[in-house]
Amino acid sequence: MKRYLVLAEGHSGDPHHGKTMCGVVRYAPDPTVAILDSERAGASYEGIPIVARVADALRHGPTTAIVGVAPTGGVLPPVWRELLHACIASGLDVEAGMHTFLSDDLELAELAGRHGVELRDLRRAPEGLGVPSGANLGHGARVVHAVGSDCAIGKKTVCLELDLEARRRGLASVFVPTGQTGIAIAGWGIAVDAVVSDYVAGAAERLVVEGASRGDLLWVEGQGSIVHPYYSGVTLGLYHGAMPHLLVLCHKAGETHIEELPEHTIPPLPDLVELYQRLALPARPASVSAIALNTAHLDEAGARRAIAGAQAATGLVADDPVRFGAGRLLDAVLAQLPA
Amino acid sequence: MKRYLVLAEGHSGDPHHGKTMCGVVRYAPDPTVAILDSERAGASYEGIPIVARVADALRHGPTTAIVGVAPTGGVLPPVWRELLHACIASGLDVEAGMHTFLSDDLELAELAGRHGVELRDLRRAPEGLGVPSGANLGHGARVVHAVGSDCAIGKKTVCLELDLEARRRGLASVFVPTGQTGIAIAGWGIAVDAVVSDYVAGAAERLVVEGASRGDLLWVEGQGSIVHPYYSGVTLGLYHGAMPHLLVLCHKAGETHIEELPEHTIPPLPDLVELYQRLALPARPASVSAIALNTAHLDEAGARRAIAGAQAATGLVADDPVRFGAGRLLDAVLAQLPA
Repeated sequence: MKRYLVLAEGHSGDPHHGKTMCGVVRYAPDPTVAILDSERAGASYEGIPIVARVADALRHGPTTAIVGVAPTGGVLPPVWRELLHACIASGLDVEAGMHTFLSDDLELAELAGRHGVELRDLRRAPEGLGVPSGANLGHGARVVHAVGSDCAIGKKTVCLELDLEARRRGLASVFVPTGQTGIAIAGWGIAVDAVVSDYVAGAAERLVVEGASRGDLLWVEGQGSIVHPYYSGVTLGLYHGAMPHLLVLCHKAGETHIEELPEHTIPPLPDLVELYQRLALPARPASVSAIALNTAHLDEAGARRAIAGAQAATGLVADDPVRFGAGRLLDAVLAQLPA
Repeated sequence: MKRYLVLAEGHSGDPHHGKTMCGVVRYAPDPTVAILDSERAGASYEGIPIVARVADALRHGPTTAIVGVAPTGGVLPPVWRELLHACIASGLDVEAGMHTFLSDDLELAELAGRHGVELRDLRRAPEGLGVPSGANLGHGARVVHAVGSDCAIGKKTVCLELDLEARRRGLASVFVPTGQTGIAIAGWGIAVDAVVSDYVAGAAERLVVEGASRGDLLWVEGQGSIVHPYYSGVTLGLYHGAMPHLLVLCHKAGETHIEELPEHTIPPLPDLVELYQRLALPARPASVSAIALNTAHLDEAGARRAIAGAQAATGLVADDPVRFGAGRLLDAVLAQLPA
């Protein structure tokens, strides 16, 4: 069993750039024993102590450091090198999901070899990828894909909550990870945003075929958004390669533009529902089965109002599965899935 | 000046898999002096002799061999290794647009070093790519992007013909290459399908910024199709990163499904026009300004009927710029471009 030290320097209080931290702490089967963030040392996150330095973390007995921040574009800030040195020199394995691979860094790789620890690049694409074979239409599983209005609004979390609820009900349900945090949590998967773009759909196909060997109800984590000016290509390649039967549309209540990009507006929810549905390939028309609303920034009354508003606007079941449980969303999905 | 030997083994008669051959022969400023295809030796293509072996090509004085076929997914068939050996050993530079890079092949690289020739991988992504900076909205040029209903139907050719016609009229027009054949023809560009998928939009932005430094009317080559089950992610990332002012929709007259994939139907042209328009980001709404129809497989009366039909169905100017000239399409585009 691993015991995680999550490296979240400068971002332990920031759910966007610290989303790997949040995901690993909440959903990984292995425990997080400490979080490193010198700016918030002495505080805690979900009961886990925040420490200033790697040396301070060691008394909590970590086995594995994981880079818990997701800088835009995925390049490791240079100041992090010192932190990684300290982890490796302290005998910790290191996991990271950057586009820049730790194990390609000669200095870090040499140091890791010397200390007998492993560097695991969660975003490294597997060998032998190609375009889809058609197996994405031929396996026997039912596929639900979480899509969204923006990055970092909870598509992965929605899938994890729906998967947990489905497994509680005894269904052969599988979370299908498509990004570095999901891979850290589930221990398998492909970071489709790090695949050569020609092969994104092929990678998505490989993931659903692998998922179908693990169960028959698949929750495919979404990436980006069809209206995101940086990542829409990843979004669509993943969507088409996964060939979902149904979609769940994820949205942060009240958001009207892409985070940090005010000129990039998000269409109204009904328009977004229609756009995602129209983009389904004719070989497998997929409809939006429910709206998953992130209401973490609202009080309870505001959350209930936002959910009622989304339901009224779209005619679909809406809920915040983290705040109010995934039951209603799961009911809505199961009622619309093919048998 | 280069003199090309185009390697088109098995495909010199096949405009789909031989599309690099067609593009280089017709549009590259440097001449093609021979085409290699042992299955059609003795014949010719556009007046260029087809030869059986590299040795037979040498009397035409080539300086550079270029891999002129585009296998699906971009992996070099193993039988080609022998051909490349012969080219290198004969002192020819080699250009190729595979996902598998020639210069990463230790054996070929060693052989090239020994014979003093260069291996140029047209699809190798440049260093330092990332997500867009916003410069795709800030340069002064006007951007027209060719999109399509399928791969290999002539999006690049349409851009090249429109660019030629615009330059004939004295406009500061630039063809912006986004794939390996376009790069071979124009001598610059990025093969966006070989970029890590997170950075496709960033690569497209870099291309239009570079294009804007070369002229003020840009024709951005499209890739794939929004309804292509393999490549739609590349299509959308390129579209959003290029931030075009206008689109030209390319279609092969009469095609109702993606080539070789009968279960993947192509929507009717008016639906495809609308889908592409709805996918424009709100920060720069782009409309389809004209339809470029590939009618090479029809007789002239059939071509004229197909063009009239596309015009009637969409209400847009339609034409086949290869067959009937690019003038009408260019007029339609210029009339709709912002000043």
